Amino acid sequence: MAKVKVGIIGATGYAGAEILRLLLMHRDAEVVWIGSRSFQGKEIASEYPNFRRFTDLQLIDDDTDRLKEGRILELADEVDVVFTATPQGACASLMSEELLKRTKIIDMSADFRLKDVAVYERWYKITHLAPDFLPEAVYGLTELHREEVKNARILANPGCYTTCSILTAYPLVKAGVIDPSTLIIDALSGVSGAGRSGKVANLFSEVNESAKAYGVASHRHTPEIEQELSLASGEAFTLTFTPHLVPMNRGILATEYAALTKKADGSLWTEAEIRAIYEEAYGNEAFIRLLPAGVCPDTRAVEGTNLVDINFKLDPRTGRIILMGALDNLMKGAAGQAVQNMNVMFGLPETEGLEFIPVMP
Amino acid sequence: MAKVKVGIIGATGYAGAEILRLLLMHRDAEVVWIGSRSFQGKEIASEYPNFRRFTDLQLIDDDTDRLKEGRILELADEVDVVFTATPQGACASLMSEELLKRTKIIDMSADFRLKDVAVYERWYKITHLAPDFLPEAVYGLTELHREEVKNARILANPGCYTTCSILTAYPLVKAGVIDPSTLIIDALSGVSGAGRSGKVANLFSEVNESAKAYGVASHRHTPEIEQELSLASGEAFTLTFTPHLVPMNRGILATEYAALTKKADGSLWTEAEIRAIYEEAYGNEAFIRLLPAGVCPDTRAVEGTNLVDINFKLDPRTGRIILMGALDNLMKGAAGQAVQNMNVMFGLPETEGLEFIPVMP
Amino acid sequence: MAKVKVGIIGATGYAGAEILRLLLMHRDAEVVWIGSRSFQGKEIASEYPNFRRFTDLQLIDDDTDRLKEGRILELADEVDVVFTATPQGACASLMSEELLKRTKIIDMSADFRLKDVAVYERWYKITHLAPDFLPEAVYGLTELHREEVKNARILANPGCYTTCSILTAYPLVKAGVIDPSTLIIDALSGVSGAGRSGKVANLFSEVNESAKAYGVASHRHTPEIEQELSLASGEAFTLTFTPHLVPMNRGILATEYAALTKKADGSLWTEAEIRAIYEEAYGNEAFIRLLPAGVCPDTRAVEGTNLVDINFKLDPRTGRIILMGALDNLMKGAAGQAVQNMNVMFGLPETEGLEFIPVMP
Amino acid sequence: MAKVKVGIIGATGYAGAEILRLLLMHRDAEVVWIGSRSFQGKEIASEYPNFRRFTDLQLIDDDTDRLKEGRILELADEVDVVFTATPQGACASLMSEELLKRTKIIDMSADFRLKDVAVYERWYKITHLAPDFLPEAVYGLTELHREEVKNARILANPGCYTTCSILTAYPLVKAGVIDPSTLIIDALSGVSGAGRSGKVANLFSEVNESAKAYGVASHRHTPEIEQELSLASGEAFTLTFTPHLVPMNRGILATEYAALTKKADGSLWTEAEIRAIYEEAYGNEAFIRLLPAGVCPDTRAVEGTNLVDINFKLDPRTGRIILMGALDNLMKGAAGQAVQNMNVMFGLPETEGLEFIPVMP
Repeated sequence: MAKVKVGIIGATGYAGAEILRLLLMHRDAEVVWIGSRSFQGKEIASEYPNFRRFTDLQLIDDDTDRLKEGRILELADEVDVVFTATPQGACASLMSEELLKRTKIIDMSADFRLKDVAVYERWYKITHLAPDFLPEAVYGLTELHREEVKNARILANPGCYTTCSILTAYPLVKAGVIDPSTLIIDALSGVSGAGRSGKVANLFSEVNESAKAYGVASHRHTPEIEQELSLASGEAFTLTFTPHLVPMNRGILATEYAALTKKADGSLWTEAEIRAIYEEAYGNEAFIRLLPAGVCPDTRAVEGTNLVDINFKLDPRTGRIILMGALDNLMKGAAGQAVQNMNVMFGLPETEGLEFIPVMP
Repeated sequence: MAKVKVGIIGATGYAGAEILRLLLMHRDAEVVWIGSRSFQGKEIASEYPNFRRFTDLQLIDDDTDRLKEGRILELADEVDVVFTATPQGACASLMSEELLKRTKIIDMSADFRLKDVAVYERWYKITHLAPDFLPEAVYGLTELHREEVKNARILANPGCYTTCSILTAYPLVKAGVIDPSTLIIDALSGVSGAGRSGKVANLFSEVNESAKAYGVASHRHTPEIEQELSLASGEAFTLTFTPHLVPMNRGILATEYAALTKKADGSLWTEAEIRAIYEEAYGNEAFIRLLPAGVCPDTRAVEGTNLVDINFKLDPRTGRIILMGALDNLMKGAAGQAVQNMNVMFGLPETEGLEFIPVMP
Repeated sequence: MAKVKVGIIGATGYAGAEILRLLLMHRDAEVVWIGSRSFQGKEIASEYPNFRRFTDLQLIDDDTDRLKEGRILELADEVDVVFTATPQGACASLMSEELLKRTKIIDMSADFRLKDVAVYERWYKITHLAPDFLPEAVYGLTELHREEVKNARILANPGCYTTCSILTAYPLVKAGVIDPSTLIIDALSGVSGAGRSGKVANLFSEVNESAKAYGVASHRHTPEIEQELSLASGEAFTLTFTPHLVPMNRGILATEYAALTKKADGSLWTEAEIRAIYEEAYGNEAFIRLLPAGVCPDTRAVEGTNLVDINFKLDPRTGRIILMGALDNLMKGAAGQAVQNMNVMFGLPETEGLEFIPVMP
Repeated sequence: MAKVKVGIIGATGYAGAEILRLLLMHRDAEVVWIGSRSFQGKEIASEYPNFRRFTDLQLIDDDTDRLKEGRILELADEVDVVFTATPQGACASLMSEELLKRTKIIDMSADFRLKDVAVYERWYKITHLAPDFLPEAVYGLTELHREEVKNARILANPGCYTTCSILTAYPLVKAGVIDPSTLIIDALSGVSGAGRSGKVANLFSEVNESAKAYGVASHRHTPEIEQELSLASGEAFTLTFTPHLVPMNRGILATEYAALTKKADGSLWTEAEIRAIYEEAYGNEAFIRLLPAGVCPDTRAVEGTNLVDINFKLDPRTGRIILMGALDNLMKGAAGQAVQNMNVMFGLPETEGLEFIPVMP
């Protein structure tokens, strides 16, 4: 079979570079071009020394304005799929039927994640430039939407907090084990989630020895989580989501709190029943590990891989359950899941190019 | 005035060494003896090179068994106050009227924190050896119990998570702004909180790049928080408390979630009203900083000091409030608060020896 | 071709676990048994959660005393090669002709690295129990001894500092560009190099924010470096080697200083000539990257891989040259090179199972 | 006595903010104004949350161009001393006799450190705008030039690498124990030394898990070290200096290598003799700790203080000596030494405001 030909817009951000890294090791993919606004003309290895020896690809100019004026169609002709690792709004501004006739799009931004354009515009404070394409876009949380992913032309790759938060809670929301209106998600992120721009707040000296919340009651990943978990519960609800920045390179850890419901007969859910619900939902998933009782998910145990580690603990004193999930924000939280989706979209084995054992220590 | 004479049992643990560090810089205190089970006969500087030049105190043998056989009374005769930075159970095993006639005790363990001996024995799984002294012991969260601290003979110095969690929520629980039965506390700790014993789990290579929960629904600081906040609310309640370990040396960050109540007239609490409640509670406190709206507490902004930074955010979408507090686990979370209590107990200015500006970066 | 069957003694140390991780992803190897003194009977995943899902191998008892009493021969019968990731002296104590008839040995300790038994005993302070096998043992710095590695029965896998230090200097020593008697090696190591035993000195809280030298003028990797570089120079010489511990998980960085010689005609070596010497030595090596002028090797640019990054800078003001090399101490500095050697010993492609692109960030 | 009145230009850089932090805790100093180019009009606490509660000083505009047009003289009239924590060239551009009639200057930049203007211009690639003031400027390595510091009008505060490198080697160079022409200095720095500007290279995600050299054979602190050590040796010489960046907030560690000379009678220097030389040089210095034999200086053991820890090790195999020094780059390497110099310049006790015990962990 011919290799899948790939283009990457925004290849010098952390997510874009991680896609490139994965695809250079992927048996069935070939990266044809990579773009950058700031470093065009240079080899990627001049910015990312890890790539030295592995590729001599040069960064082409992928300035959004020039792409919009038609350049994107020429580039699309050269490849089977374009990954857009771009700021909010950029992918929507490029979207057209002409583009989709030439290539598939896997968008790393939020442009096509939210089905309700009003929600998008309220949380992102920008006008959506391609609302007509929202209905056909597939939300690429692969484990939940695998069938739609297969035929997607526009794949909206989920956010990092989102993927972790949703996968951790989904089976229990769907089974009605927890009361979704009580759901509170407290999450930690490594610093690579803040991207590769030179901001004082993300300097080593500012972040080291620091732990703090940010975007409290206002983080943009909130509506994504609400959208998908509302699908699971069958009715819309709101939740509280609080992200924190902690001093590590990679990793998302979600700790989620909810009140347990009672069963139809008024009795309480047992640990075994809840474990069975998770097993049924994820038992066959290649990238989800339901941990043994008592073992808490740890970001380092999934680092560098597409895995999600999940577990839970009942708190009978309060009638609550505590759910925990961990993933690598640049892998299952971004590039890894994007490649997983690419595999599904092109009929490749879903785990192709993603079968890494986590590095420890 | 004569200096307060001090002895420290357990001076080579992190909390004990921090007490020593603070007292060596304290104008009105003099450390007379320091003890260690493992390093007796050595200078403390051989284990803690930071002390070189500042003290040539040698560590005496403070093995609990030998102390119990009477040695503690001799040591008590030499000082005005003994800090016991010892494992659970040790301080209770030493307690006696004879001891308290000779010296005051500031206990860093949990032995005298919980008023209900049954609660202590359930959470700590050991028999309390001095339950008769529980009634007179003062829970040394200074800001809440300042008057009792003044006359305490046994000062039970609070835990690190506890101090942060309680101070952050106390005024709102007391004012009835939040429904205590909905309270969930999600907390992060630096690794020094795990102590200075050579455990594989706390090796640099194991902790770096790691974020994970532990002690889920079972951490021993839970009943302390419940005891004090139940005092504030006027009725007993349970809460959910989840600690996490993150890769930094020092710091506790507590993020707390609760449903807002309605006011007597059925209207909602405003941000200004809630801020006023905090101001009234803490406006005159030397060690509590209520941050401006929108600024999230950050562990590094209090590192090395006895400060607690507190703030909150309303989440009108869900009817909840998110509370945030940060402190240094070895300072306000242990040694700093112990010295603050010593100051109060001996009639010294409460901030004496604790007036540091946090180091940044 | 049948897969190479492998046993690992000491699989729960960092090096042993890294060998396992690599071999579980290796197309042509099959791990038959793994051993541990402390965790026998458990699944490796209970100690190393990264392995969950990837193997259910249980740790067998590999206590050295029991192995010596004959158990090692039974175990050897099951495999083609045994990796001994054991303390100094253990592998030598197991060595015998009977053993080597059954299996090949790749030893991660220093037991068979030094050709001169007196040097071994002086630096390691233990009696060598199998000196008769020293002559046939091959020093497994693959790039330097590839031909001997092919037929080795006992492969002495080099140390981490050693591999980095030697490879960085070797071509220039051999070409006579530097005066070996002036060679000074200053090296930095991540903390995983200190192993996985629960020592206070390696706790996160002790190592974070710490940089210090250790083993000054006495580190045991010194004679290995001297042995190999003396081979290159053609005459014995001593050098100064100073290791330092810095707060990161993985990585060795060597900075080496030497006086430049003059060429036969009295003129000075040019940068281009020196670069050509490196290119000739390493131009075809899969795992060595000679960096472009002006780019300094960085440990993070090789992390998780078997690569060594090398560069140099002339210092005409002083007549010296500064050499720099970086590698991952658990990969090219331990497990990666061990697998590279296994590949060579069994006629497999040298890069098999080692073709990773470094992770960034 | 009236307090020393102070102004700080560049108060929002790490060094400037550290000067402010120290002086706010200083009994005999009063900060009258603080300046910033980027944040004028704001309270310093909005950028440095550690200052909240401790000062409500607002940042004035200290744009160099406006200062040059005369504003600096008005500001100078208000204070006894101005600290210039500014980029290279700024302080020289402001220098005038009118200025020095109004105030003393403690300059944190290199403008007045090098006595030879040609050396300055060669290493810094800028024209020196006030060469006439070079002769009177005092190089503020306090321990070496204490008498001149007392009467200085222009105090050139040394660099961080410089202070550590010079103090570590000075007594041995002066005593002729080492051959200065063989001196090689290998140094490590925490990331705060790179300043507080938003550069990608200093992001947490770029620096964490990274160790690398930079400025090899070309770092600007080299000529400072050569100038001062040449004063000690009595003749000019060049040396090799290699700085490295390692993932920690603060700290400089210098490891220095040199060949030992022989004594006049041809015999070798003993460890006791060398120790005596250090003791004689530094035995009475408040901020220098000569460590016991076998204890290596560690950056964390001096963090947050003005201390320098020094030790050495003989390497009889090679005839060399290894010298080691550690300090906090923002304290003795910048702000701490600046305050130490201020104390000396104004007749205050030299240790005033600098008597901290290092924080551990």
